[in-house]
Amino acid sequence: MKTDVVILAAGQGSRMKSALPKVMHKLAGKPMVQHVVDSARRLAPEGLHLVIGHEGEQVEQALAGQALSFVWQREQLGTGHAVAQAMPNIDRDSVVLVLYGDVPLTRPDTLRQLVKLASEGDLGLLTVKLDDPAGYGRIIRNAVGDVVAIVEHKDATEQEKLVREVNTGILALPSAALHEWLPRLSADNAQGEYYLTDVIAMAAEAGMRVRAIQPEAEQEVQGVNNRQQLAQLERWYQRQQAEQLMAEGVTLADPARLDIRGELQAAPDVLIDINTIFEGEVVLGEGVEIGANCIIRNARIGAGTRVEANSIIDGAVVAENAQIGPFARLRPGTEMAAGSKVGNFVETKKALIGEGSKVNHLTYIGDAEIGREVNVGAGTITCNYDGVNKSLTRIGDGAFIGSNSSLVAPIEIGAGATVGAGSTLTKAVADNQLAVARGKQVNLDSWARPQKKGS
Amino acid sequence: MKTDVVILAAGQGSRMKSALPKVMHKLAGKPMVQHVVDSARRLAPEGLHLVIGHEGEQVEQALAGQALSFVWQREQLGTGHAVAQAMPNIDRDSVVLVLYGDVPLTRPDTLRQLVKLASEGDLGLLTVKLDDPAGYGRIIRNAVGDVVAIVEHKDATEQEKLVREVNTGILALPSAALHEWLPRLSADNAQGEYYLTDVIAMAAEAGMRVRAIQPEAEQEVQGVNNRQQLAQLERWYQRQQAEQLMAEGVTLADPARLDIRGELQAAPDVLIDINTIFEGEVVLGEGVEIGANCIIRNARIGAGTRVEANSIIDGAVVAENAQIGPFARLRPGTEMAAGSKVGNFVETKKALIGEGSKVNHLTYIGDAEIGREVNVGAGTITCNYDGVNKSLTRIGDGAFIGSNSSLVAPIEIGAGATVGAGSTLTKAVADNQLAVARGKQVNLDSWARPQKKGS
Amino acid sequence: MKTDVVILAAGQGSRMKSALPKVMHKLAGKPMVQHVVDSARRLAPEGLHLVIGHEGEQVEQALAGQALSFVWQREQLGTGHAVAQAMPNIDRDSVVLVLYGDVPLTRPDTLRQLVKLASEGDLGLLTVKLDDPAGYGRIIRNAVGDVVAIVEHKDATEQEKLVREVNTGILALPSAALHEWLPRLSADNAQGEYYLTDVIAMAAEAGMRVRAIQPEAEQEVQGVNNRQQLAQLERWYQRQQAEQLMAEGVTLADPARLDIRGELQAAPDVLIDINTIFEGEVVLGEGVEIGANCIIRNARIGAGTRVEANSIIDGAVVAENAQIGPFARLRPGTEMAAGSKVGNFVETKKALIGEGSKVNHLTYIGDAEIGREVNVGAGTITCNYDGVNKSLTRIGDGAFIGSNSSLVAPIEIGAGATVGAGSTLTKAVADNQLAVARGKQVNLDSWARPQKKGS
Repeated sequence: MKTDVVILAAGQGSRMKSALPKVMHKLAGKPMVQHVVDSARRLAPEGLHLVIGHEGEQVEQALAGQALSFVWQREQLGTGHAVAQAMPNIDRDSVVLVLYGDVPLTRPDTLRQLVKLASEGDLGLLTVKLDDPAGYGRIIRNAVGDVVAIVEHKDATEQEKLVREVNTGILALPSAALHEWLPRLSADNAQGEYYLTDVIAMAAEAGMRVRAIQPEAEQEVQGVNNRQQLAQLERWYQRQQAEQLMAEGVTLADPARLDIRGELQAAPDVLIDINTIFEGEVVLGEGVEIGANCIIRNARIGAGTRVEANSIIDGAVVAENAQIGPFARLRPGTEMAAGSKVGNFVETKKALIGEGSKVNHLTYIGDAEIGREVNVGAGTITCNYDGVNKSLTRIGDGAFIGSNSSLVAPIEIGAGATVGAGSTLTKAVADNQLAVARGKQVNLDSWARPQKKGS
Repeated sequence: MKTDVVILAAGQGSRMKSALPKVMHKLAGKPMVQHVVDSARRLAPEGLHLVIGHEGEQVEQALAGQALSFVWQREQLGTGHAVAQAMPNIDRDSVVLVLYGDVPLTRPDTLRQLVKLASEGDLGLLTVKLDDPAGYGRIIRNAVGDVVAIVEHKDATEQEKLVREVNTGILALPSAALHEWLPRLSADNAQGEYYLTDVIAMAAEAGMRVRAIQPEAEQEVQGVNNRQQLAQLERWYQRQQAEQLMAEGVTLADPARLDIRGELQAAPDVLIDINTIFEGEVVLGEGVEIGANCIIRNARIGAGTRVEANSIIDGAVVAENAQIGPFARLRPGTEMAAGSKVGNFVETKKALIGEGSKVNHLTYIGDAEIGREVNVGAGTITCNYDGVNKSLTRIGDGAFIGSNSSLVAPIEIGAGATVGAGSTLTKAVADNQLAVARGKQVNLDSWARPQKKGS
Repeated sequence: MKTDVVILAAGQGSRMKSALPKVMHKLAGKPMVQHVVDSARRLAPEGLHLVIGHEGEQVEQALAGQALSFVWQREQLGTGHAVAQAMPNIDRDSVVLVLYGDVPLTRPDTLRQLVKLASEGDLGLLTVKLDDPAGYGRIIRNAVGDVVAIVEHKDATEQEKLVREVNTGILALPSAALHEWLPRLSADNAQGEYYLTDVIAMAAEAGMRVRAIQPEAEQEVQGVNNRQQLAQLERWYQRQQAEQLMAEGVTLADPARLDIRGELQAAPDVLIDINTIFEGEVVLGEGVEIGANCIIRNARIGAGTRVEANSIIDGAVVAENAQIGPFARLRPGTEMAAGSKVGNFVETKKALIGEGSKVNHLTYIGDAEIGREVNVGAGTITCNYDGVNKSLTRIGDGAFIGSNSSLVAPIEIGAGATVGAGSTLTKAVADNQLAVARGKQVNLDSWARPQKKGS
């Protein structure tokens, strides 16, 4: 059966105290509404309708290019009114699932169950049992367990108040029924709003079964109204990811000090030390070790490679058994071959580092192709930028670059060549040549050290 | 009405196992007793009397220059004896508030309530309800809720032991009463000490009302006797600050991994990543992003500026939309203009960095004034120190400093000038000039690589 | 009485999802089985018998050279069968203590109590009270408190299920009894295994008293079957170490963010900031301050020394009142004398740094001996490696090394000598000489800046 998902993302979220629309606040590096969109996408819906309003342009811009329709709700007249804006685009023979842009973590499996109920002609409602249900609409069920009413807290009897199962607002039902009922909603209430929840009573009245399911975890239905709640949900989400990784055979030094903001694919026997962050898409091969305080973003790291503490890797591909850090920074376009090494206080960018080559200390390698078994001495700088253009440095296999050298690109250093320490080279060096460019050393006896000047 | 605050800070604190007096141990970067002094100061007291004893010289020295009187308690004869030492300096028409140097976090509002009670002629007593009151003096109240007695745990009946409200020792009362009662305290007890608590019985006896109030949080009255308690209070305090920041519109990646040791003023939509530390006075403009593991001390950072991970900023002023780090270190006297950039493995000190200028990699900029749109190449060093004197480097607008250059100060590089990579400059460069100082490159074919020496 | 310890370490641990045998997974930097071996060693046993099987070669190799016997269990036929493999090596007049390689944290004191019971002719059994004992064998005691049976969960009556005391499998008993009973074990059960636990019934039957003791903490008997449990135990262990340090007079900024993987010996008034890691053997003198995010491995640090944030120290000895970091990296063989300083983005290796000497910025010091009161300028590199050999740099007392210098080793810089900034030196400099090796500065007016090339 066809499914249409309506995501409500028009609210202001004033308690966030932000210039950003609430649904654009990030959880695990991704806007909350994007989490909802991504989960909804897993259902392969016919249509994905995002109802926007407050600062809607920002949402529209951020999600532009994705396969979804933006529906404007110009006035904030309640959830029923919001859904109604999307209905003209939804066929009567579809099933409608209503989600919320500020309830980011409902699992696709949970959504599938709701859609299944609706595809059977019923209203599928997501409910949750709370330790403290005060303030929420209580779920009243009949003898066979179907929902017969939702009683608001203020209208509840003492006995009804004992009910811990409450409404989450997330529901699915046949489109035809929604097409019929939404126009009949009334705004005759304290807020003067059209409430989607009222369709539940309509369903009951019309003899449609209302069947409730519960999520695996309470956090699946937790909405975010302020930054405290955002932080709580972030931590819960991160913990879930940590548990998942451990179950898959990854050792975490401290599951409470791991942040994954994207997709981390880690082979068995990966070790991840404390306080690490993974962003974007990261793939770690078997036995990879990630040291403390590392940040790894959009990178593939081969089996057996060891990334020592305080390293930052971004947009790099690293082969097997390489060694990185501590205090290394690999920037986009870095490719390290097997067994190569980038050490402390080294920055690389658009740099190929060949098999077994070493760039161990205090070096900048930018726009460079380095062959195999090259040794780049401490303090070496590839001078890739003349103020307007970037140029390439090529270093052949087995070359030895002396410390504190400056290689003024474009330049080519031949295979087996040697560059004397402290040299600034502007011209090519042929294979096996020795290149030196230094001032002559002069030792003076007759000289007086500087004297302290008057202050 | 006049208020005098007496702060007891004479105790030894042997369970701290420290050469430092207990009250000098820091919570959130500030000695505990300084927290108490600062809170007391908020009451604008007539006098602030600090009773010192054990290692009192250290306390006196640390707090020297602040508007308070040090009162020596040469012998440790109990809290009543301690307060008595301060009384000669306190007028009879004042109100006396007694605080403790090792109870650092009582809120000023709580103190104000106590003083108000005392200014009405009553004894104001701070009490707290504990889940486990064992060991503490129980508060016994009469029908109207006034305190009539404090019963020590060992003297309590079974029914009294059920009372969860206990004495904190923090109290305020009219000075005249204290002048009268303190000399009548007896040391006829197991410890042979004069207990301040005994004045409560005296008050009751004299017909003075004893009215108790409670703090908002139990931690306000928590004393510190060992480092475990210090750590617990530190964590609670840090959590409070995190909650406060989030309520004001700051996003925290992990509220449990934030340390503020001083005053952090953050505009809305500031993002603070994990494991950050703020010290001294820090002001962050709207939308500032602070990366993971950063340490920011005494700094102002303008709106839209992004500080990447693992950066340390100390005593710097940064304008809008600047970019810092990762692995940058800004030391005191650094001023970064709008849109400027300081990158990885760069240290700055007493350095002005003009609008749009970039110091991206592996550089030391000390005692320097850099104009606008300057590009400082990787590995550049301002040689500001000759062993005795520090000298200034000036770089004009639009200059381009080639990589691995050494600028021997005092030196001036003109606007639009270019310094060739690898140059060591000792003389001024005029506007738009190109300056180069390098050895000539020589490539040798006839040379043999070094051979491995026998080990 | 003689004691023999049998440690069962043959299991597969398939839930670890690892190529490593389960017992080789590390807790606090040490394989779990090594924790057990080290605790057992504290009893000074006659024999220490490690029963290995699954991937046993790895265990054998890792623990090679330690005073213990490896006993192969070729087929995994249960705990009773495992112990039986070790018995041929154990005298009848000994006491046998059975431990498990995946239960790493039983305290030696707990083990001693068990051995004492066995040496009195009884069976000493370690039991634990669990909040949720479901699934575990319940301990049934008689009127005098001796254990009379262990009832498996599935066989337990409703009343027996209420018993919260359960069997841990850790036990000690006279060797003679074990020699007699193990051959009588039956594998006539669902798993077809020989269970060591069955000797308890045999003991009861034979009239041997079975006396149970409990560990101080539940975690002492917690086994590790997956990485989640490993992480939980790691965190508990780390917390214990943090509490211990605080009790000894160390201030921890956050006890939940400290990792000790080895032995940390810290004098009073050491301050340790957040997110620090200690590995191997580390000794910190009085008043040492360790900044945030530091990693200290196998190092001795003298009183009053301050290690600033983000520093890594490995295999170094540092004297009193030195200053290190931030962003410093001391590698093995570094020795810093009193009052010396190593600053940001500096790496040292096999380096002696004399009293009061300073290596403040962006420097590599390898294979070097630096005298007293030397100033090493920013960007200095000791060129210690020619591609095959490492050579030594010697710098005399009071020398001044200008910034961005390259010292090509082997080289000697005399006392009081000065090296001009930007020099590459290959020849010795005598005492008090000035050595310079630079290209001559040329300033050109007639030159055009590079133009942007077509893209």
